[in-house]
Amino acid sequence: METFVYCNPTTLHFGRNSLNGLSNVLHQYGKRVLLVYGKGSIRQNGLYDEVMDNLKHVQAEVFEYEGIRPNPVIEDVEAAAALGRKNNVDVILAVGGGSVIDSAKIISITIPVTHPAWDFISRKAKPEKAVPVICILTLAATGTEMNPFAVISKKDANFKDGYGSPLMYPAHSFLDPQLTVTVPRNYTAYGIADLIAHCFEGWFGAGEATLGDRFILSIVQEAMKYGPMLLGDLGNFELREKIMYAATMALNGLTMQGKKSGDWAVHGIGHILSLLYDIPHGASLSIVYPAWMKYIETKYPDRIGALGSGLFNKDLTAHESIWRIEEMFRSLECPVRLSQTGIQGISKQKILELLVINKVSGANYKLNEEDLRKIVELFL
Amino acid sequence: METFVYCNPTTLHFGRNSLNGLSNVLHQYGKRVLLVYGKGSIRQNGLYDEVMDNLKHVQAEVFEYEGIRPNPVIEDVEAAAALGRKNNVDVILAVGGGSVIDSAKIISITIPVTHPAWDFISRKAKPEKAVPVICILTLAATGTEMNPFAVISKKDANFKDGYGSPLMYPAHSFLDPQLTVTVPRNYTAYGIADLIAHCFEGWFGAGEATLGDRFILSIVQEAMKYGPMLLGDLGNFELREKIMYAATMALNGLTMQGKKSGDWAVHGIGHILSLLYDIPHGASLSIVYPAWMKYIETKYPDRIGALGSGLFNKDLTAHESIWRIEEMFRSLECPVRLSQTGIQGISKQKILELLVINKVSGANYKLNEEDLRKIVELFL
Repeated sequence: METFVYCNPTTLHFGRNSLNGLSNVLHQYGKRVLLVYGKGSIRQNGLYDEVMDNLKHVQAEVFEYEGIRPNPVIEDVEAAAALGRKNNVDVILAVGGGSVIDSAKIISITIPVTHPAWDFISRKAKPEKAVPVICILTLAATGTEMNPFAVISKKDANFKDGYGSPLMYPAHSFLDPQLTVTVPRNYTAYGIADLIAHCFEGWFGAGEATLGDRFILSIVQEAMKYGPMLLGDLGNFELREKIMYAATMALNGLTMQGKKSGDWAVHGIGHILSLLYDIPHGASLSIVYPAWMKYIETKYPDRIGALGSGLFNKDLTAHESIWRIEEMFRSLECPVRLSQTGIQGISKQKILELLVINKVSGANYKLNEEDLRKIVELFL
Repeated sequence: METFVYCNPTTLHFGRNSLNGLSNVLHQYGKRVLLVYGKGSIRQNGLYDEVMDNLKHVQAEVFEYEGIRPNPVIEDVEAAAALGRKNNVDVILAVGGGSVIDSAKIISITIPVTHPAWDFISRKAKPEKAVPVICILTLAATGTEMNPFAVISKKDANFKDGYGSPLMYPAHSFLDPQLTVTVPRNYTAYGIADLIAHCFEGWFGAGEATLGDRFILSIVQEAMKYGPMLLGDLGNFELREKIMYAATMALNGLTMQGKKSGDWAVHGIGHILSLLYDIPHGASLSIVYPAWMKYIETKYPDRIGALGSGLFNKDLTAHESIWRIEEMFRSLECPVRLSQTGIQGISKQKILELLVINKVSGANYKLNEEDLRKIVELFL
């Protein structure tokens, strides 16, 4: 194991009716609140009204930024940060899925500065303070609710990638599985693929941590068992609960403690697919992971075989493991080839070009242009 | 799952040479330091000098309380708190195993008040503030380094039990496995039994949390695999590291999230054995757990069978599971009967009397006097 320092400062409010605790938490912050959310689905399911009632209860002055896009873009972040800065907000309340919360986290470090958010992402500037963020999560997937990372795109720069700062942990995250019950079947599935892929990034990371590996297998097995059941019973609260909790545990640090790093090549490649073709994040990962594993199979057979054997409680070769993992993504109704998305006009050359521009590689298993070309061939 | 709120504020500094970060952490607190430790084994292995060098480096004024006893007693807590109060200390530095750290945590809430620490333990008073505690752990066992609990005895009251307050999380805990390399074979084994028993208390607790159950199996399997290896190779850093990390994960909240509570009857019974006969805590647990499981076997066969089947990757009945778990404790060189401790003059009647006085029972599986009598019979 590597020497590490760990503290996760996010307070997690998990479970049925956990939003009952919201106004007590809001009370601890100032009254000027930047409310950030997406395209307004929270207006249809009653959540918007519930949140507004809570804000009224604490006599908050609310500044609203509506319309954060999926696969979020830096332009929304800049605009929302300008609104927050102008109104000198005390706290950000982010209501939505990974896109909204990721945006809110970057907004939180951008409000206190006068330069663009992009200066952080491009590593020109380093954040020194942040407005506290409170999250209400409506989609089980990214794990952003309990970590200091965010993913953001800048389309005119052909950029989509992750960014992190210890200042970006949410102060509080409210996770009521009931809020995910209306998530449609396909996005439910992509969320499950996403959490599984987060575990895999840890598994294929650098460094050895045997208990961390066991935790990874535990989380993926939980998703493998209850994920397909949930797809057949979308309204089932208990199944929503299991998947929501697993998604949080998959990327809150637990699986990485004592490792040097995760790998993240597959995420890097997936981000490019989402940037080019607006593919949902989780779907991009189920497409790329089998291909990436096939490509590294002969180089790292033991590690792949150990993953498959651990997940399926059976001695499996690397080859058998990859086959079973691909089947597992299929059983979750997730695409495992780019062609299965039905997207027209896919350009292998364009994908490769952006992979090279964005210098996509793994922290553990380095990839050069030739490697990337072969991986792309494998997932087309 | 139950609705829960969780945040663990302890910063964990884990791994080889993690103490290199100590003086940076000390810098963040005031200069008046209460140093608390045990019978001075830290003077022999060089740790005392290293700690003093760090304290000198930050120009600390140090007030030392030496001699916290194993199975710690309230009298030491009162005396150390008086020393800290008189000298208006800013921070407590606790160097040792569970006894020292548990004591430091109760000292931390006692320094700010004028009444005895016992008023907290007896629930006459409730703590409202605490002096921050920094821990340097020298024994992998109790998990106290990352939770808000402490166990304390008051012999003239025939009392030994746990106490907890959210104020009692350590601010920082330093865990360098190298510091545990000199722990003798028997105490190494008792530490492993202790961490396994903590997992079991979660397993047999009230409420259902399937991913928490997987985490429990993961931690116990880690201990089952590497524990016996460590007993045969006490100087092995990597094995010390695995066990130390497992012990912290076994009782930092991870195994309990979404459950109503752990059970803790076995701990309650074990505490009475330690109070009466000074049996090391972990040994008291390996003695009581098999007996307790045998007693509840017919009432809860499924839960016991699921534990054994999960741990040993094989379909096992409750009966087979208990037999295997008892064997597992034996393979860790831990006693599984009170008679194996070689203690003379054991009084069944005295044990039962104290169990009744202390109202020992489980939070999930309630025990009356008759139940307790039968369990005692089973572990004699």
